[in-house]
Amino acid sequence: MILDIINKKRLGKELTYQELDTIFNGYLEGEVLDYQMSSLLMAICINGMSDEEIFALTKIFIDSGDVLDFSMIDGVKVDKHSTGGIGDKTTLVIAPIVASLGIPVIKMSGRGLGYTGGTIDKLESIPGYRINLKEGEILKQLQDIQIVITGQTASLVPMDKAIYALRDVTATVSSIPLIASSIMSKKIAGGADKILIDIKVGRGALLQTKQDAKELSDLMIRIGKFYQREVRTIISDMNVPLGRAIGNSLEVQEAIDVLKGEETDNEFVRLCFDLASEMVSMGKNISKEEAYEQVVECVKNGSAYQKFLDLVAHQKGDLTKMKISSKTKTIEAKSSGIIKKIDALEVGKLALSLGTGKETLDDTIDHSVGIYLNKLVGDKVKKGDVLATIYIGKKEPSISYDSIFTIDV
Amino acid sequence: MILDIINKKRLGKELTYQELDTIFNGYLEGEVLDYQMSSLLMAICINGMSDEEIFALTKIFIDSGDVLDFSMIDGVKVDKHSTGGIGDKTTLVIAPIVASLGIPVIKMSGRGLGYTGGTIDKLESIPGYRINLKEGEILKQLQDIQIVITGQTASLVPMDKAIYALRDVTATVSSIPLIASSIMSKKIAGGADKILIDIKVGRGALLQTKQDAKELSDLMIRIGKFYQREVRTIISDMNVPLGRAIGNSLEVQEAIDVLKGEETDNEFVRLCFDLASEMVSMGKNISKEEAYEQVVECVKNGSAYQKFLDLVAHQKGDLTKMKISSKTKTIEAKSSGIIKKIDALEVGKLALSLGTGKETLDDTIDHSVGIYLNKLVGDKVKKGDVLATIYIGKKEPSISYDSIFTIDV
Repeated sequence: MILDIINKKRLGKELTYQELDTIFNGYLEGEVLDYQMSSLLMAICINGMSDEEIFALTKIFIDSGDVLDFSMIDGVKVDKHSTGGIGDKTTLVIAPIVASLGIPVIKMSGRGLGYTGGTIDKLESIPGYRINLKEGEILKQLQDIQIVITGQTASLVPMDKAIYALRDVTATVSSIPLIASSIMSKKIAGGADKILIDIKVGRGALLQTKQDAKELSDLMIRIGKFYQREVRTIISDMNVPLGRAIGNSLEVQEAIDVLKGEETDNEFVRLCFDLASEMVSMGKNISKEEAYEQVVECVKNGSAYQKFLDLVAHQKGDLTKMKISSKTKTIEAKSSGIIKKIDALEVGKLALSLGTGKETLDDTIDHSVGIYLNKLVGDKVKKGDVLATIYIGKKEPSISYDSIFTIDV
Repeated sequence: MILDIINKKRLGKELTYQELDTIFNGYLEGEVLDYQMSSLLMAICINGMSDEEIFALTKIFIDSGDVLDFSMIDGVKVDKHSTGGIGDKTTLVIAPIVASLGIPVIKMSGRGLGYTGGTIDKLESIPGYRINLKEGEILKQLQDIQIVITGQTASLVPMDKAIYALRDVTATVSSIPLIASSIMSKKIAGGADKILIDIKVGRGALLQTKQDAKELSDLMIRIGKFYQREVRTIISDMNVPLGRAIGNSLEVQEAIDVLKGEETDNEFVRLCFDLASEMVSMGKNISKEEAYEQVVECVKNGSAYQKFLDLVAHQKGDLTKMKISSKTKTIEAKSSGIIKKIDALEVGKLALSLGTGKETLDDTIDHSVGIYLNKLVGDKVKKGDVLATIYIGKKEPSISYDSIFTIDV
């Protein structure tokens, strides 16, 4: 029976709801074994899934755990998700902006995966910050300050956790139907009314081509329609790291710089403002232009930064105790010219080698390490200029960083 | 590294010898896990392999164990392999025929798999028959009587055993490159000079279409060329069971009937004579027509049957102690007419439900049970005629047998 289902997908045929239910719930119950599920996942990766299969799988994922209900909280709950990138700390910037404009933000974030960082890892670099709020605590905090950023509860889409862990070790991560079901099931079970997806594409991302990104975008919008949730998407570049900082404490610091209005003119800031405007537009049913003005204003008048401070305080974090390593090395320009490229994947690998994330399940994360890009793409540099600063902890950088920067002479 | 290799095959790219070696030997050494290998196997199933990859994989398989050398035995060693079918006891007939004509036959056979029986299971229905001869015993018996039929030694292509067991439970059996590497590596490591492959196609076989059979045939001939082994193939029908008997003792009895010349005119006998003629043609470098005459003669004059008796005696089997169950049921014609179809797969399922093979790893085989087809395709029957006899042991037939026979009224 199980083998018949796998075989059907091997041959590129469409599985029924009942067949998907049998095999996926069978896996969660231990009747379908890891090596059988990975075989099916690979067949799905290569042969794809129809919309009907994807809607069915999304439902099976949602039904595997609790579905949260925040309808007692006033306002449209807009959730945002990024498909993951190098230096992606947008959530730390945009969640306070949106909340400061009166829209409730309940963000359940994840940990880093592969070379990409996770919001929860970044927040844990703030000593004391609680990432495991209970449902009652989430509700109370929302009523008090309209913003929560916490880890996913264990009861939220447990099937996604199981399947994701297996995909991660079987080269079956890059499947558009599986990515879409995974994200959409979590957002819907998490109680979102409207959903904004930041789809990253390029060297440092899960998806390598704009075509794949467009396909994922269209698919998530169709899933949203099926579940009566408005979904908007932004496709953004991940060939270059996002912003200046890569590494947990460094990224929190950069988010603070942006919220304080100290960084205003780079790609990362533009992306944050774009995403925040989209969320505000969705949450208030206003035009994006109107929303954009409000976003700029709440940064300028300090209310967004204040919302961030409230968030950290409510979740017991102490910003004064954050640590950034004092042991540094620099990467210097070998020639004068203009920076043409900064390779996101190479930066991600270097950061991981320093301990910004886990390379194996037993690794521990060093929040104090990372990379700070002193120069960005388009900047003019002279030979010998510091292009980047590497913050080192116990692990010496084990990756050559010669190929990170490309300079047009 | 492992994930990069799996990913490459997921994308349909060609793996190098080094990459295949890393992942397959990694699996044998426990560094690559079951769920990773099954993911790769599914990618191979769907995306295929180039000839270079298949040659490399075959070499990796061969190198995983001992390579037998029978060059001290005079004569061309011709091996025959069947891709497996329902009621396929051809080896029991053709090995004695070929050996009786002066060609040394060293046949290392396997056990049943799924609905298809295995020669070793059939021979074990002869009480006492030794299926685990050591290399020295094989050599001595070859010198004495020019024929050996034994089980594969554990040291012969151990990688195939490991991979096959995994393919069997992950719906990755039907891959032409994997089937070809598996068969050819065993034949080459088993010391064959020339190889004849009986490719079964149809309802009761691994391959369902003639096109797949032709593809497998061409591929095995190319692998043979690469390893300087002459390979010939016969593509034969497996929509209908082979011969009259399905079940271990019953099949040995049918093989004896053919060797004694008591069955002469049915598809099974024609296939045996065809395969035997091909082997004799290869072994003696004579035309197939000339070989065919010798085959007919050695059955007629009793020397083939005598060779079978010598084989059984040397391997300590006692034909007088074979058991066929005395508890029977019959399938009767529901109408008069001509038999149009006998469904091999349904017969295979019914036989397995009686205990002719193992349904789970813990099952035991009942050699005394099975099915005997009193009527074959093309036979005229009257309503109420006995079409088949079911020999029942401890397990009652649990499969309906209404759909086995199709009668043209």
